[in-house]
Amino acid sequence: MNFQIIKRTLGWILLFEAIFLLVPTITAICYGEKEVYDFLFCIAVCGALGGCCFIGKVKNQSIYAKEGYIITAMSWIILSLFGALPFWFSGIIPSYVDALFEIVSGFTTTGATILTGEQLDALPKCMLMWRSFSHWIGGMGVLVFIMALLPLSGAKNMHIMKAESPGPTVGKLVPKVKETASILYKIYAALTLIMFIFLVFGDMSLFDAVTTAFATAGTGGFANTSAGFANYSTYTQVVVTVFMVLFAINFTSFYFILMGKLKDALTTEVITFLCIVFGAIALITANLSLTSIEYGYTFGETIKHVAFSVASVVSSTGFATVDFNLWPSFSKTILVLLMFVGACAGSTGGGMKVSRFIVIFKGMRHEMSRMLHPRQVKKITLDKHIVEHEVVRGINSYLAAYIAVFIVSLLLISLDGFDLTTSFTSVLATINNIGPGLEMVGPAGNFAAFSPFSKLVFIFDMIAGRLELFPILLLFSLRTWKK
Amino acid sequence: MNFQIIKRTLGWILLFEAIFLLVPTITAICYGEKEVYDFLFCIAVCGALGGCCFIGKVKNQSIYAKEGYIITAMSWIILSLFGALPFWFSGIIPSYVDALFEIVSGFTTTGATILTGEQLDALPKCMLMWRSFSHWIGGMGVLVFIMALLPLSGAKNMHIMKAESPGPTVGKLVPKVKETASILYKIYAALTLIMFIFLVFGDMSLFDAVTTAFATAGTGGFANTSAGFANYSTYTQVVVTVFMVLFAINFTSFYFILMGKLKDALTTEVITFLCIVFGAIALITANLSLTSIEYGYTFGETIKHVAFSVASVVSSTGFATVDFNLWPSFSKTILVLLMFVGACAGSTGGGMKVSRFIVIFKGMRHEMSRMLHPRQVKKITLDKHIVEHEVVRGINSYLAAYIAVFIVSLLLISLDGFDLTTSFTSVLATINNIGPGLEMVGPAGNFAAFSPFSKLVFIFDMIAGRLELFPILLLFSLRTWKK
Repeated sequence: MNFQIIKRTLGWILLFEAIFLLVPTITAICYGEKEVYDFLFCIAVCGALGGCCFIGKVKNQSIYAKEGYIITAMSWIILSLFGALPFWFSGIIPSYVDALFEIVSGFTTTGATILTGEQLDALPKCMLMWRSFSHWIGGMGVLVFIMALLPLSGAKNMHIMKAESPGPTVGKLVPKVKETASILYKIYAALTLIMFIFLVFGDMSLFDAVTTAFATAGTGGFANTSAGFANYSTYTQVVVTVFMVLFAINFTSFYFILMGKLKDALTTEVITFLCIVFGAIALITANLSLTSIEYGYTFGETIKHVAFSVASVVSSTGFATVDFNLWPSFSKTILVLLMFVGACAGSTGGGMKVSRFIVIFKGMRHEMSRMLHPRQVKKITLDKHIVEHEVVRGINSYLAAYIAVFIVSLLLISLDGFDLTTSFTSVLATINNIGPGLEMVGPAGNFAAFSPFSKLVFIFDMIAGRLELFPILLLFSLRTWKK
Repeated sequence: MNFQIIKRTLGWILLFEAIFLLVPTITAICYGEKEVYDFLFCIAVCGALGGCCFIGKVKNQSIYAKEGYIITAMSWIILSLFGALPFWFSGIIPSYVDALFEIVSGFTTTGATILTGEQLDALPKCMLMWRSFSHWIGGMGVLVFIMALLPLSGAKNMHIMKAESPGPTVGKLVPKVKETASILYKIYAALTLIMFIFLVFGDMSLFDAVTTAFATAGTGGFANTSAGFANYSTYTQVVVTVFMVLFAINFTSFYFILMGKLKDALTTEVITFLCIVFGAIALITANLSLTSIEYGYTFGETIKHVAFSVASVVSSTGFATVDFNLWPSFSKTILVLLMFVGACAGSTGGGMKVSRFIVIFKGMRHEMSRMLHPRQVKKITLDKHIVEHEVVRGINSYLAAYIAVFIVSLLLISLDGFDLTTSFTSVLATINNIGPGLEMVGPAGNFAAFSPFSKLVFIFDMIAGRLELFPILLLFSLRTWKK
């Protein structure tokens, strides 16, 4: 294990965290909030500790697969441990575990909160900004961000990008990793800016437009008030709906659209994803329209709320205009299934990713056809490319790891004694970085009532889920540390 | 597709069903019940239709993989369609769909019932016998039974045995399929007899001892009264507990014990299964003892009820001495997880099977070690044998098919509008052939309240689950019927 390069990278992480913290600091100055000193102190701590990591020379610059996973896992843990400090120092969240939960929920773009409605509505603007900005940083990946900026040596960083990027494979747009990272971040920033412009044309304040754009871009889900998006105009709600869907689409598709290659942009995954979104909207709208329960929406409002909720859940954002926990069972079941599926690979969205499901079900059909014709030799293909055996195996292992983490988490959470739906959907909402679940953790609820132990489990699940399990599992595996 | 051999096999199935129906007929005669005429009529119908299938010559005796799956799927459907007739003709279950649900629940050894407590307590003895005997027939597999008796040509039947036997692989004990089937059925019959002898020494009537032995041997779960096993002595409850565990163990292990090869009997799967059973008993006992809720059991009674419930759920039997739906969340979560895992492959138990989970998690660890050392070449092994690539792929496809069937079923069931826990565990309990779930379908509940459409979904799930999905999925796949 190359400990020197790990230390050096963690140093970079802390220095960048100090820079990131400038954003809420400036917010605090603009609004004359007293928490500015807490942020300045945190910047000093991150800067000083980060600087210490640069003492000593790095003799060996090589990053192998092993180091790639460990660097990624540790970077996210360090980023979170220090990112929680402003909440804790300022006394706004008195328990450090709660503060850690909140910032991990931010960086991992989960959007689950331990703040009650009243606490949330009393939060200073700088803290709201830090929450939303953490979504934006975490959405595309902090290491990918650093890679896009720093003059690190080329191909070696592929291992880091692989470990941090969501989805079963990493597509390099251009031969160099650094340039790929840079292109992705430019698209990300541009889309965020476009969304911000759309929002300020509506009924949002400048501050809310900035934070909402950050939180949507990262498919995060932290809202600035306990009312969520219920009180905004239809225009704003529609803009947010559309951008939630856009940020859940593979970013390479946007690159291809910019390059004029529309055909390459419409991959099987994107088409399947859009079919899932529109199919779910149609089914839930039908269910709500045909049920005997009276929700008091017109048909147009029903479609609007359903589209918002579906986009919010499938993109793993977690915003809400209505409390879908009150909807009928069929609609809630669809939403739970959407939480599992999640967004496209290579987007900022969470979940198990559409492409994984496509490969899993193609594998199943493949096996069935082999049962009928045992001597047949065929390969699984996706977008006319053969899906390599290693990728299929990796996806199956991911599914196994997902089931294992899910089972253990569910067991530990159920010790708190809440109902099964709460326990089940709270694990689902954290491991898939969604935010809200059902019942107690539904859109109108929060995670405040869980024990500190359960919150630690959720923190683990959020980070493990964001990094797609293996970096975190390898960090805790004895075999990783054996010579 | 060799339709002639399919027709001929279905003819055998109907003839054997006529023979099976003699058991409840004799019961009706012994107890002087008027339903004897219904049974005699059903025997006549099965005999006549079965006989018709023997008209014409079978030119081609060959059974390929495709025919193996189709024969298995259709045999189970025919068996169920005609097995439901006595309930329906006698007017005891007025709806044919309900009658079909009940007999499918019997043959597939699920043990879920659409009868309410009052209806169950009023059932004539011949009907109770038909329910329990259907468990015994379905437990080991009706085609395996026929194969053990009929002079069918040897190796070709392997395809049928493969399609009907639970678990990822079929172990042939002796070179000939017919003899293997015969040995397995002898062990099955002997164990059932031993259990019966143990039971008559307790406080059970002769009739209850016979039906309980049948229902336990098949890991079925139909009880003769709405009280289940609550009112029997501790001796009887312990006997049932022990035999539920025994019938969930791979039958080849018993064969090896009889051959004096104790080492071969203790496979990784059996050891893991026993660890799961004892671990679950310890955790739930601790949970029940430490919770603040008062259940009114002594510590000894707690262990007894927990052991019974764990054995009942993990073996997919579904008997009950207490209503575990009232237990705390942690205990209920463990029981739900046990429902997923199920019994050992090659037993009469349901669920996804312990060996599948072992291979899935070994595959995950394997992949993680490959992430650390990409150039490593290692194979997954189980009991010192290499697990072939085809087996691993088959298990992964099974998992995918399982998820697909589960999702679609859950969506369809949720249209009935019951709570998520009821919908989720009712699908789980039927697809894994357990019997009871939680909430409305808990040990004190039943499946009566579901719509006829939902009951058809459950019927599909029970048969699909019993045959481990692929035979039924292939039956409904267009590609199977294409030339």
